[in-house]
Amino acid sequence: MIAEIITIGDEILIGQIVDTNSAHIAQELNKIGVSVHQITSVEDEHEHILTTLKEASKRADIILITGGLGPTKDDITKKVLCEFFGDSLVRDDAVLRHIEFLFEKYVTTPISDLNREQALMPSKAIALHNEYGTAPGLWMKNAEKVFIAMPGVPFEMKSLMEREVLPRLIKEFKRPFIYHKTIRTYGLGESAIAQRLEDWENNLPVHIKLAYLPSFGTVRLRLSGKGLNEEDLKFSIEQEFEKIYPILEDIIADVNGENEDITITIRELLNTKNHFLSVAESCTGGELATKFTKNPGASTYFKGGIVTYATKAKEDILSVPHAIIEKNTVVSAEVAEEMARNSRLIFKSDYAISTTGNAGPDKGDSDKDVGTVFIGIATPEKVFSEEFKFGRNREQVVKKAANKALEMLLKELISK
Amino acid sequence: MIAEIITIGDEILIGQIVDTNSAHIAQELNKIGVSVHQITSVEDEHEHILTTLKEASKRADIILITGGLGPTKDDITKKVLCEFFGDSLVRDDAVLRHIEFLFEKYVTTPISDLNREQALMPSKAIALHNEYGTAPGLWMKNAEKVFIAMPGVPFEMKSLMEREVLPRLIKEFKRPFIYHKTIRTYGLGESAIAQRLEDWENNLPVHIKLAYLPSFGTVRLRLSGKGLNEEDLKFSIEQEFEKIYPILEDIIADVNGENEDITITIRELLNTKNHFLSVAESCTGGELATKFTKNPGASTYFKGGIVTYATKAKEDILSVPHAIIEKNTVVSAEVAEEMARNSRLIFKSDYAISTTGNAGPDKGDSDKDVGTVFIGIATPEKVFSEEFKFGRNREQVVKKAANKALEMLLKELISK
Repeated sequence: MIAEIITIGDEILIGQIVDTNSAHIAQELNKIGVSVHQITSVEDEHEHILTTLKEASKRADIILITGGLGPTKDDITKKVLCEFFGDSLVRDDAVLRHIEFLFEKYVTTPISDLNREQALMPSKAIALHNEYGTAPGLWMKNAEKVFIAMPGVPFEMKSLMEREVLPRLIKEFKRPFIYHKTIRTYGLGESAIAQRLEDWENNLPVHIKLAYLPSFGTVRLRLSGKGLNEEDLKFSIEQEFEKIYPILEDIIADVNGENEDITITIRELLNTKNHFLSVAESCTGGELATKFTKNPGASTYFKGGIVTYATKAKEDILSVPHAIIEKNTVVSAEVAEEMARNSRLIFKSDYAISTTGNAGPDKGDSDKDVGTVFIGIATPEKVFSEEFKFGRNREQVVKKAANKALEMLLKELISK
Repeated sequence: MIAEIITIGDEILIGQIVDTNSAHIAQELNKIGVSVHQITSVEDEHEHILTTLKEASKRADIILITGGLGPTKDDITKKVLCEFFGDSLVRDDAVLRHIEFLFEKYVTTPISDLNREQALMPSKAIALHNEYGTAPGLWMKNAEKVFIAMPGVPFEMKSLMEREVLPRLIKEFKRPFIYHKTIRTYGLGESAIAQRLEDWENNLPVHIKLAYLPSFGTVRLRLSGKGLNEEDLKFSIEQEFEKIYPILEDIIADVNGENEDITITIRELLNTKNHFLSVAESCTGGELATKFTKNPGASTYFKGGIVTYATKAKEDILSVPHAIIEKNTVVSAEVAEEMARNSRLIFKSDYAISTTGNAGPDKGDSDKDVGTVFIGIATPEKVFSEEFKFGRNREQVVKKAANKALEMLLKELISK
């Protein structure tokens, strides 16, 4: 069962927004055994969208479209679908009532004709209820192919996928099983890992693939396979995992690397002991706190953090003694350790992580090279730190430092 | 001059990574007058990549490819390009020396044959120097079409675009001028704005387009045009802007909306007065601090922030009186204002922003509805706050709250 995703919108092609919708849709489809063969982004241009629909329908069974369902002139997805299906737009009364309801309840400006026109639907389409917005989704069938259109607003699309699209696809199509197992490693680069795995990889069964997913200092390895028998598939992938585990044992940080988000594993480990965490950030500037608070349940383990971007704030708020900064400079093991120690005391937490470094492009209040970062960890038993060189690219220094801090904490928690 | 972008990699099609490369490439191409007609993401699969290359070369003059240049088995871009061009791989000594240099200087593991093989290049290709990595870019010409391949690692790709690809494209192709003007508005939805602009939009010259770019509570409006005469083009777009300004005056937050990043405008305004900023965050969990520290120059206006996720931390660290929390609950105007006031005092800053709210999915330590957020602002003259309802979606509540806080601060700074 093959799907293609088409995202419509000039704003993607001029690079003003990043297409995050496709990744979400692809993830959700993969979970139900539907493979995405291609993702295509095209402009708000009638002929181009039409051609893209025609081409996609030659290759795929399911075509998912996002964008171009808004109330404005540049939103033409429904018109193009009408042409493709030889259909015309008619008013859908249930959709109209929902639009009127949303305006009454949530919108302060009066409802307009443009808003009401969003209730026009191709006559052959089934409207998919959009709880959060005025643009309904569409479900249209042609021979054995299904065309699904969803609004481009990410949270509206996500809700439509969950409530309308996935349940309908599960009902409509017989799908093979897809199984992934992802392992998070740290400390070795992609090619060094590949070299270790060379013999094993050469003998991998054809229905199983290995992918390397490097990301700012960590490499996740994903084994994935497709098959008609779920038990056999799982068994064969777990068997391959048993083979690589001893080869990579020293660098595996997390055998449940499916959580792209390492903070979920950290939360689980802290929760089991009812332990709490806090942070003290300099060069990561809030990135660590943001990572910990991104997911629901943050308050069950994360007390908070202090971002002391200015050197003086490290003294005033984190109580790092002036003499320590004077002697070692602000980018030093001593300052990182003081920051972690004091964050733990101030927040009354069990663990604390700190970062201090030069993210660049300028050196700031320290003579250390751009890219130098010290990461400190305070635990109930000890305080320690490590020094890293993360290169000269600001964004990369911040992200690598945050990832490395998460890894150091994870290692510390796992070693208990 | 038409370009297409092809991104290669299973990890995109199973949704494990979001393709941010395409947006960056599209942005940079637009700046030099090259339009991106289509973005296509395909798997690491020989035949599929080959077909995609063939199709793209029918439509576009410039084909940019990212991904599939790594050292591992699943990296096959160079092989496919060889087939497409009827070429074969030969060793490039300069590339090999660079790989050996990088390993000597930055990598602790020994260099392997897989790494050395990255110096194999199609004989007809020009290698594009990759300062930050072992995979060089490629530049290949066929009739009047150019094919460019770059590694998928974002910071390597960015550096290659800037130093190698864009200068070569500028030299090689005559391009029309593209001009954008983007205005940031707040307070009205997309369709309400469209209604106000209806008459004007109906009379827009054909070479100018208007796009609506909504994002968590703000809508940016982008006028864009393409033409052979730079002066005429700029003049006609500025003329249209003069027409819409009076129609939208009350909702325009920033006429230089080109900065997708509003913090750059805030930094400029604070810098002119040598004023400093700090934050105190609850529900935004570090998102605000991260936004302010994302760009270089943060230390010229941002002192730092405190993330008090736990209610107790608001008392202990931000000195919000227990009685005020008791009386008003932790999600209240009073607490938001205390947080802003005290952040300003603790950091000795001129301005401070605070957030306190229920991001959900659970209510936490307050009886206020999920989605309720109070944003506080402290200035040298006053402290005030506003209440907002940002819906029930956690991610959306955090992002909308952070954006709204930036807008409130921007309004306050502009009103001086």
